[in-house]
Amino acid sequence: MNAAVFDAQEFRKALGAFATGVTIITTSGADGAPVGLTANSFNSVSLDPPMVLWSLANSAASLGTFRRAEYWAVHVLASDQEELSARFARRGIDKFAGLEYDAGRGGIPLLRGCMARFVCRTASQYEGGDHLIFVGEVLDFDRSEAAPLVFHAGRYAHATHRDSQATRPREAALAGSFSEDFLGYLLGRSHFAFFGQLRDSLEREGLNDMEFYVLSTLSLQPILSDEELARGLPGIAEERWQQALDSLVMRGFAHTRQRDGVAYELSERGRRCALRLISQAKALESKVLERFDAGEAAALKSLLGRLLGAIDEGADAIWKPR
Amino acid sequence: MNAAVFDAQEFRKALGAFATGVTIITTSGADGAPVGLTANSFNSVSLDPPMVLWSLANSAASLGTFRRAEYWAVHVLASDQEELSARFARRGIDKFAGLEYDAGRGGIPLLRGCMARFVCRTASQYEGGDHLIFVGEVLDFDRSEAAPLVFHAGRYAHATHRDSQATRPREAALAGSFSEDFLGYLLGRSHFAFFGQLRDSLEREGLNDMEFYVLSTLSLQPILSDEELARGLPGIAEERWQQALDSLVMRGFAHTRQRDGVAYELSERGRRCALRLISQAKALESKVLERFDAGEAAALKSLLGRLLGAIDEGADAIWKPR
Repeated sequence: MNAAVFDAQEFRKALGAFATGVTIITTSGADGAPVGLTANSFNSVSLDPPMVLWSLANSAASLGTFRRAEYWAVHVLASDQEELSARFARRGIDKFAGLEYDAGRGGIPLLRGCMARFVCRTASQYEGGDHLIFVGEVLDFDRSEAAPLVFHAGRYAHATHRDSQATRPREAALAGSFSEDFLGYLLGRSHFAFFGQLRDSLEREGLNDMEFYVLSTLSLQPILSDEELARGLPGIAEERWQQALDSLVMRGFAHTRQRDGVAYELSERGRRCALRLISQAKALESKVLERFDAGEAAALKSLLGRLLGAIDEGADAIWKPR
Repeated sequence: MNAAVFDAQEFRKALGAFATGVTIITTSGADGAPVGLTANSFNSVSLDPPMVLWSLANSAASLGTFRRAEYWAVHVLASDQEELSARFARRGIDKFAGLEYDAGRGGIPLLRGCMARFVCRTASQYEGGDHLIFVGEVLDFDRSEAAPLVFHAGRYAHATHRDSQATRPREAALAGSFSEDFLGYLLGRSHFAFFGQLRDSLEREGLNDMEFYVLSTLSLQPILSDEELARGLPGIAEERWQQALDSLVMRGFAHTRQRDGVAYELSERGRRCALRLISQAKALESKVLERFDAGEAAALKSLLGRLLGAIDEGADAIWKPR
């Protein structure tokens, strides 16, 4: 697109192609009042001396305060600080209300729980079109291990690290066959491997995999009708889950209730058994997810959730018998 | 950390907490030779006039060329351009060798296949410690829909969009129970839902889920011993997969071979059946993954792969019978 026919919205979209972290930049006014705003125009500039930069619209209400400020602080936000980002992006509210923060050099507010913080002294202010570029010398900084909040294409995002070459999946021997990179294979193997770790516990409770799966599904709601159960167990042949359900009822883990037709609920025994297994399964989940950072664990769950949405909704039509 | 005891490596790590996209910046020398380098110090500055900035080390070999350049181009890299990023980050090689590119204003090289490109005329060059800050007015730009290449904490990353509030999982009714956010539940449900879409095809081939899973595993290698099969089917009770395997052998989908003990391979019939089902499963995979961008699909597979690694390796010890 040529600048002669420059479309501001298209230009914004093109800029949005560049992913960034999210920062909150704070300072304090002449009256000592804390000032802050969300910005993703931050970047590093220099290592020696240590310097960073960011830019602020000439039209921003806080421009005057930052222009006159000797010190300001950049807070790089962590994955769990999306709400803080939204709060400091809003106008006309007291952004610091109810927030705990510390006082840094010159009394500037320092927020807590961030991935990294840089306390800076203004080194230069440069013109940049409708923005002013602030270059600061970094006087202090700190950092903590956390997952980052990411902004891309106008939305918040998670960052997940890529595989190194060493951990990439092997190709299959049979041409045209599944490889270990095939999604269906990964789903099946992850599922079996995960529940395989619970096998001994299940055996002690006298449950097989399908019975445990139906038991878990029953624990999602106090009482479930036949149809609700079927919707909660998509992709499983009805006779398979019915058989497991009958076995649970017969052995007193669940019982039937009348509610516009047949419905099921866990018995006290079933509830206690579910709680025991669930606490073990949750411990296993925590153990396994230790290998991921918080953002990656959230990304995995979010992607699986969207995968479910995609399977339930769209794929049905093409797989009916022809 | 105070600047008085400034540790350069710690400072780099703190800067790395801020996630960025990855760009390649190009220009051409007085002799017309193309010049380019990988940079993540890019950011937007101004909308009206449209301006962007980036910074370059004073020690960079190409500093003189960029200082004198009237035009330069910023290429925002897509998820599949990690190799291009690595190539332009290297020194002492001909970065443009064998690369197809177009000539932009002033003959500057424009690379292909990028997420976004900005052709700029230098507006200002500002001092920034050991770097020079280039501010450019954007003359042309273009953009394509793609997943971004992301850099965070010194490594390449994928960006995956977050759930909106509307799609966040419901909490379970039973306190302490699984919620729909529980990983084991998501894995089970995704696996069942995915294979449920293949149920009609499996029934036409006369296979149940476990027989199909064993058949797929046999297709990974030309011939598999008992132990190799067991390793390939972790988390599944031996009698379950043995029963499926026996049924496959009995019906001529696979046969046994002697190879230091019992081993198995697909028969011609099994191979043809596997190929039919696999092509359907791959079509289903493509259909489902249409809902994700390329980076997200890769992220999902990569996270599942790492999950498997974590389960296989670490979790075993804590789940043995007590």
